[in-house]
Amino acid sequence: TELMEESDSSREKYLRNILREMLTYVAFLVTICILTYGMVSANMYHYTKVMSQLFLDTPLSSRDPSTFRSLSTMEDFWKFTEGPFLNGMYWEVWYNNKSLPENQSLIYYENLLLGVPRLRQVKVRNETCSVHEDLRDEVQECYNIYTPTNEDTTSFGPKNGTAWVYTPESEMNSSSYSGQISKYGGGGYYQDLSRTKEESAVQLQVLKDHLWLDRGSRAVFLDFSVYNGNINLFCIARLLVEFPATGGVVTSWQFQTVRLIRYVSSWDYFVGMCEVAFCLFILYYVVEEVLEIRIHRLHYFKNLWNCLDVLIVTLSLVAIIMNITRTAAVGNLLKDLLENHTTHPSFEPLANLQVQFNNMAAVIVFFSWVKLFKFINFNKTMSQLSSTMSRCAKDLVGFAIMFFIIFLAYAQLAYLVFGTQVNDFSTFQASIFTQFRIILGDFNFSEIEEAHPVVGPFVLVFKNALTYTTMSEMEMTDLIKKSCNK
Amino acid sequence: TELMEESDSSREKYLRNILREMLTYVAFLVTICILTYGMVSANMYHYTKVMSQLFLDTPLSSRDPSTFRSLSTMEDFWKFTEGPFLNGMYWEVWYNNKSLPENQSLIYYENLLLGVPRLRQVKVRNETCSVHEDLRDEVQECYNIYTPTNEDTTSFGPKNGTAWVYTPESEMNSSSYSGQISKYGGGGYYQDLSRTKEESAVQLQVLKDHLWLDRGSRAVFLDFSVYNGNINLFCIARLLVEFPATGGVVTSWQFQTVRLIRYVSSWDYFVGMCEVAFCLFILYYVVEEVLEIRIHRLHYFKNLWNCLDVLIVTLSLVAIIMNITRTAAVGNLLKDLLENHTTHPSFEPLANLQVQFNNMAAVIVFFSWVKLFKFINFNKTMSQLSSTMSRCAKDLVGFAIMFFIIFLAYAQLAYLVFGTQVNDFSTFQASIFTQFRIILGDFNFSEIEEAHPVVGPFVLVFKNALTYTTMSEMEMTDLIKKSCNK
Amino acid sequence: TELMEESDSSREKYLRNILREMLTYVAFLVTICILTYGMVSANMYHYTKVMSQLFLDTPLSSRDPSTFRSLSTMEDFWKFTEGPFLNGMYWEVWYNNKSLPENQSLIYYENLLLGVPRLRQVKVRNETCSVHEDLRDEVQECYNIYTPTNEDTTSFGPKNGTAWVYTPESEMNSSSYSGQISKYGGGGYYQDLSRTKEESAVQLQVLKDHLWLDRGSRAVFLDFSVYNGNINLFCIARLLVEFPATGGVVTSWQFQTVRLIRYVSSWDYFVGMCEVAFCLFILYYVVEEVLEIRIHRLHYFKNLWNCLDVLIVTLSLVAIIMNITRTAAVGNLLKDLLENHTTHPSFEPLANLQVQFNNMAAVIVFFSWVKLFKFINFNKTMSQLSSTMSRCAKDLVGFAIMFFIIFLAYAQLAYLVFGTQVNDFSTFQASIFTQFRIILGDFNFSEIEEAHPVVGPFVLVFKNALTYTTMSEMEMTDLIKKSCNK
Amino acid sequence: TELMEESDSSREKYLRNILREMLTYVAFLVTICILTYGMVSANMYHYTKVMSQLFLDTPLSSRDPSTFRSLSTMEDFWKFTEGPFLNGMYWEVWYNNKSLPENQSLIYYENLLLGVPRLRQVKVRNETCSVHEDLRDEVQECYNIYTPTNEDTTSFGPKNGTAWVYTPESEMNSSSYSGQISKYGGGGYYQDLSRTKEESAVQLQVLKDHLWLDRGSRAVFLDFSVYNGNINLFCIARLLVEFPATGGVVTSWQFQTVRLIRYVSSWDYFVGMCEVAFCLFILYYVVEEVLEIRIHRLHYFKNLWNCLDVLIVTLSLVAIIMNITRTAAVGNLLKDLLENHTTHPSFEPLANLQVQFNNMAAVIVFFSWVKLFKFINFNKTMSQLSSTMSRCAKDLVGFAIMFFIIFLAYAQLAYLVFGTQVNDFSTFQASIFTQFRIILGDFNFSEIEEAHPVVGPFVLVFKNALTYTTMSEMEMTDLIKKSCNK
Ligand SMILES: [Ca+2]
Repeated sequence: TELMEESDSSREKYLRNILREMLTYVAFLVTICILTYGMVSANMYHYTKVMSQLFLDTPLSSRDPSTFRSLSTMEDFWKFTEGPFLNGMYWEVWYNNKSLPENQSLIYYENLLLGVPRLRQVKVRNETCSVHEDLRDEVQECYNIYTPTNEDTTSFGPKNGTAWVYTPESEMNSSSYSGQISKYGGGGYYQDLSRTKEESAVQLQVLKDHLWLDRGSRAVFLDFSVYNGNINLFCIARLLVEFPATGGVVTSWQFQTVRLIRYVSSWDYFVGMCEVAFCLFILYYVVEEVLEIRIHRLHYFKNLWNCLDVLIVTLSLVAIIMNITRTAAVGNLLKDLLENHTTHPSFEPLANLQVQFNNMAAVIVFFSWVKLFKFINFNKTMSQLSSTMSRCAKDLVGFAIMFFIIFLAYAQLAYLVFGTQVNDFSTFQASIFTQFRIILGDFNFSEIEEAHPVVGPFVLVFKNALTYTTMSEMEMTDLIKKSCNK
Repeated sequence: TELMEESDSSREKYLRNILREMLTYVAFLVTICILTYGMVSANMYHYTKVMSQLFLDTPLSSRDPSTFRSLSTMEDFWKFTEGPFLNGMYWEVWYNNKSLPENQSLIYYENLLLGVPRLRQVKVRNETCSVHEDLRDEVQECYNIYTPTNEDTTSFGPKNGTAWVYTPESEMNSSSYSGQISKYGGGGYYQDLSRTKEESAVQLQVLKDHLWLDRGSRAVFLDFSVYNGNINLFCIARLLVEFPATGGVVTSWQFQTVRLIRYVSSWDYFVGMCEVAFCLFILYYVVEEVLEIRIHRLHYFKNLWNCLDVLIVTLSLVAIIMNITRTAAVGNLLKDLLENHTTHPSFEPLANLQVQFNNMAAVIVFFSWVKLFKFINFNKTMSQLSSTMSRCAKDLVGFAIMFFIIFLAYAQLAYLVFGTQVNDFSTFQASIFTQFRIILGDFNFSEIEEAHPVVGPFVLVFKNALTYTTMSEMEMTDLIKKSCNK
Repeated sequence: TELMEESDSSREKYLRNILREMLTYVAFLVTICILTYGMVSANMYHYTKVMSQLFLDTPLSSRDPSTFRSLSTMEDFWKFTEGPFLNGMYWEVWYNNKSLPENQSLIYYENLLLGVPRLRQVKVRNETCSVHEDLRDEVQECYNIYTPTNEDTTSFGPKNGTAWVYTPESEMNSSSYSGQISKYGGGGYYQDLSRTKEESAVQLQVLKDHLWLDRGSRAVFLDFSVYNGNINLFCIARLLVEFPATGGVVTSWQFQTVRLIRYVSSWDYFVGMCEVAFCLFILYYVVEEVLEIRIHRLHYFKNLWNCLDVLIVTLSLVAIIMNITRTAAVGNLLKDLLENHTTHPSFEPLANLQVQFNNMAAVIVFFSWVKLFKFINFNKTMSQLSSTMSRCAKDLVGFAIMFFIIFLAYAQLAYLVFGTQVNDFSTFQASIFTQFRIILGDFNFSEIEEAHPVVGPFVLVFKNALTYTTMSEMEMTDLIKKSCNK
Repeated sequence: TELMEESDSSREKYLRNILREMLTYVAFLVTICILTYGMVSANMYHYTKVMSQLFLDTPLSSRDPSTFRSLSTMEDFWKFTEGPFLNGMYWEVWYNNKSLPENQSLIYYENLLLGVPRLRQVKVRNETCSVHEDLRDEVQECYNIYTPTNEDTTSFGPKNGTAWVYTPESEMNSSSYSGQISKYGGGGYYQDLSRTKEESAVQLQVLKDHLWLDRGSRAVFLDFSVYNGNINLFCIARLLVEFPATGGVVTSWQFQTVRLIRYVSSWDYFVGMCEVAFCLFILYYVVEEVLEIRIHRLHYFKNLWNCLDVLIVTLSLVAIIMNITRTAAVGNLLKDLLENHTTHPSFEPLANLQVQFNNMAAVIVFFSWVKLFKFINFNKTMSQLSSTMSRCAKDLVGFAIMFFIIFLAYAQLAYLVFGTQVNDFSTFQASIFTQFRIILGDFNFSEIEEAHPVVGPFVLVFKNALTYTTMSEMEMTDLIKKSCNK
């Protein structure tokens, strides 16, 4: 867009230009809104919810009410895989005990399991940590926390089959993944299950009998993908069970609901047309901005609105490229899959790509809305205000640094004092987040008190101290503003 | 009411007029308050509560603690209807196992079941959605989300009886209803149960054995009505079980406790007299306002108080008409019902009418209270203030538009980024609501964090961003106000 | 205390007077603090807690996790009395199954059951309400909500024994009591249990077999008293089970932990001495204030501090009289009790007296603290401020009335619209309370949303409307203050 | 550090000095941050969590869902020790039922139990309290609350072995400990368990059969220590079960995760070098401050920054000494332990020392951050502000006293009125804490309302009164500030 002040001299021509630019812009905004609303729907949330409920909230057995969310031992893990996991994966009969047609397995009678699920394990080597000499008699085996250098790649147990022989990341079409405890590589020992419940149960029993999980196990990934034909959505699921070096179990999960196949219904074709329009708009803006840059050179970047233009255009170009890549990849993968039902399909990279594309689109829309301000922003009070504000700027920045230091000091204090006892302060980042929440008033002390009867009261004192400090800081800010407004 | 400034010249006469008007108005306000307090009582809440607890909170069985609120599969649905639903509906013995007198069924020993309960199902046709050609071998059946055009109206299963043959909305005295997922039409496949538990259980077993629910089922309505003679109240209940196209189950419910039969006790007759008085008051105000409009014509509507008068009078007239309609309809329906016990009585339209009448009455009372301000509002500070305010109006409106845009931009961002994972952002409207709650401080982050360990922290960042933006907006508003007050 | 301005002319004498008065006052304050701290101790809370947990939180049986808090039918009531109630009341064996010495029953092995527990029922008569003529065939029996005029006093069932024959309030040493639904009289049909579990179980079985509870039953009181010798405390417990006319069950409870026997340990005797000192102080202040009133007559009451003095002295005199009455009554009752173990002792009136005495003492202490302000309150800024404030008073009062009206209007709106569905708005008082909580930010919308999926969103809209109204009201107040401060 | 204003005359030299001082200080800050981050890690929180979950959240049995957190009777205590406690302590088989190698017991297969667990009981004597003469027949035994003078030291039961014969604190290497109810001495009757589950179960059965716990029992401590070789951490656990004089059970717990053995990995040696650097820094600062004190004498302490310097240096010296002591003590204890596996090792004093050291280090870091302000604090607005503030100081202090009195008055009122019913007000300190939380908006009324249907509404009224008082206080503060700023 043009640098308004200089490009025109006559006011009428200027206003006409602004109007034209604005109308073009509104058309662009409408196009992009249609595009993004084609991407997300309430169905997606429902799909995520029913799939996650099925695997996360089903109790281990009628006598044991704990669920995947609350697994605590390796034994629980096997109970989960043999119970809720297998039952949720293979639906072979109707509610009146008649078999489903054609021996199909339809999760919730609606969702097609694509290929087979996969269990993948990463392990660490024995003697990866140093033990104090006094204790070496007692502690003969020692498995450190997971890091790529500690990873175990030797065969173990029966030493036959992918479950007992290490497969590196490069051969598995997988990538590294951050859990709650560590970031794990894409390789490991994996076992693909079968298309029927009975065969899968036998495979799991073999793993359990030969101690597939031992002290070296640090994480197990349960991966599978389902497709819902009714609403044309894929759900790529990953259940992660980590076995930290402290003992015990930490579970997490990821259910990515994405529309990988596009252009099926007539609405899809309408969105497709909008996509073409979007590309044309971006082409138009690219040309315009390039022309302006050639005219104004570096002066161009002094105007914040121009920087915003460049940002939007750049993000849009990246998004277009991502979308094309994605569409091509899905086509290939689907064909491979349809030829071979009994392997595990790696939809995960595609789902990640789609999610990143969605997020990028969301950011583009956000900035596009903000750009609207450009067309509103010619009232006087506003500019008057901003000049007033800039006068205090230096004082306020100095004060902000002081605030930042005291904030850090508090965060570190909380981390060191409560870190070993309270989840909300267990890492430095968590401690900073928690302080933000306390300042914004969103911190439920009663939960802390119940969980930590000894530490609780101290957290309260800390909270009060922090709140009072913040309140007096805010008062100071107010005073500074007033004193420099005079 | 009169336009005060012009109608009188002498101050004394003016004050006398005001006083007379005010006393009339207070009498009107007292009448309307009595009327509305006759409508609602604490009993109504208790009635709603015990009825909803009975059906919503009873566990499916002693071994399965899940309830109607947490149904998750079609099998659970049958467990519910055969268990808590039948047990809650038919109470045939006392706590010491003696039968109730006359083979009556009294829910909680106090509430008469009116007619019989009804199960109604709406379905969608097969092949209502388009499947990508690569997947057509795999996905042979495909049932889209419910829309009136997708609705299935063909007979199925044994193809005999109302349960298997479609009955259109017009023949069922029913109306369309909005669930959690879609808005469903009033037609469908229905089964009326019997007056005894044993017969009803047999009917349900037949439905279950012949797969009444299949992949095309999108919703089942469980409707029944009860009457409590002790406190003369009806409770019209609807339990809705939706089967979204994603699989799984979403439940919702509606318990409408209404007083359909009026004028039974002596208090009722007193309220009836107040109703007559109310009609007279409205007649008086209609005449007065019509006269004033004839005098002042369009100037009349420039005074906001006059507009309020017209609003109150209009709403009151509508309410009076609704009330008369309702009373007539109840009389007819009750007679029909008493002649035939074995059909399902459609009290739902009546209950809706009554609830809408109550809400309208509530709004009338609210505006009537607000009108009191007219008689208080002659102090000076007030008018001084409003003139000061109006000076800033233009600046503030401009700023409000900017706020509105940024608010929308945030809502869209949250919807696109978190919509597939977090319920609070799963639709655009929900996203807007959630933002209001965040701004007002009513958003519990810990729940999100627990439910979505991966997405949680990003929601927190979003929340902080939103809160800080809002806070700085408010500061800006303050500055604007101050700068234009100078 | 003296009217300072007039009583003295020389400043020195004045200051000496003030100092003397202040020292006397501090001594008085210390005395009263010691007195009240002798009244309450952390043991009392623990005692209340363990007693209430035992009866309120014990599940009905190992298969039925519902507790007294969640009873929902008459059958549940009998399960409770035969299960947790009897088990909690009679402890006859140690944890290793050896009997307790002397066939004693010690709750938690520490608390002596005084006399025997009592079950008391209040009922209403049949045909206490009017049924619409169309429904008279269907609804042959009709039991209204409980009011004293509706109460049933005829014998029923076997018609022998206190359980089946009405006993009036006057013969039962009992008083009326407000439950969740109604206020019940002190009379009724009662059954005293026995000193052993076996006999009590037989008595309960008889009641159950003969349908002691029927459609006319409106409430059952379970009363008992225990004494803990270790810490010299009584716990007077009342469990109330109401059967509202709507059907279902509403439970509430009262555990009053009081120190009825005083002057046992040496600390008690020290407190006793303080009580004597307190009486002397009160005597001194009575004389002083009477003298002052005689001098200044009605001018005396123009000074707010003097009114406070009179208030404190009057409350103290009432408290002293209450204490003496209580001490005398306990002595008599205890002797009666020790002669006869097998009757139910009515400690309830005594406990109420003690609780009221404690509350009165708490209020006296509060006002005594406030009186300290008198001795601080001679700085200038303060008086300057109060004169500024009083200038705005008229405007602010006018505005407060407007606020009050809008507050009432909102409360009524919420009551009428949400009253039948949401507990927080089920009565007009509850609606007003809830509005206060919303304004103060203490209202958890998520709970409402979960419980009432249909009504929930409207409550949110209502909440937002209320909050915004309040916020703009506060802004208005601010503006008014500023404009009248100028 | 130097008193800047006086020590230098030429500006350049002054600035160079400041810069040098600042650089030194930043180096010091970096050193201390590295040191403290070596102390705490996310592993520690995970370790605390898995250990506490194992013992606190495991249900007593598959039929009884209550856990250690919700024990309520002595019978429950024995169920806990025989169930979750023994099962959690001794892990002897893998999940496929094969034995662990070498008959080892590894908690969660990773954590070595050090020595054996210990049960320790403290009791009070019979007839430690005075019973009113009227009740002496009824109440023959009477055991007061625990105080050192009431403690029972006589042998009981079989009178053989440490479980039945009192061992004083001095012989047990134990110390006194504050529970929820009282502070208990370090002596008592103790039973060390064995290295295998079978033997331990037999020992517990003997205790139970001979009534080890009786009416005199006031607390049982369950102590044990585990070591995780993977991450080189100790977890010192204490489960405390108190039996208050009121009956019932109150449980609390303490899990201290500490790194007692240092200098194992190469990172540890790097931290060790930082520790040496830290000592050198402290030496440097000690010398500098001593020199300055000699020059300026008492003037030195007039500058707040100098006081801060002295504080930091003093705390650091104490911390260094603590660290050396701790390292020496661990070495000795570990050697003792390795020679004898079958005794209970008292790691508790060491863990306490380590925790106190960590807290002290945290405080040192906090003050070190605050000292950074010294180098920022030369802008003008700041000093201008502080002079403005000091003008109002006297008024504000007077007002603060008034606030303090009203705060105390409210706290006492709440304690006296709600103390016997609501946990949040059950002691005077708790009442003060609760008031802070109410003022900061962190008080969930709904919980109170649910738990105490009778008292609840009054708490709400109290809360509103308190909030309004505080709000008007804040308004007053504002007014005072403004009036004295003029
Ligand atoms: Ca809050």
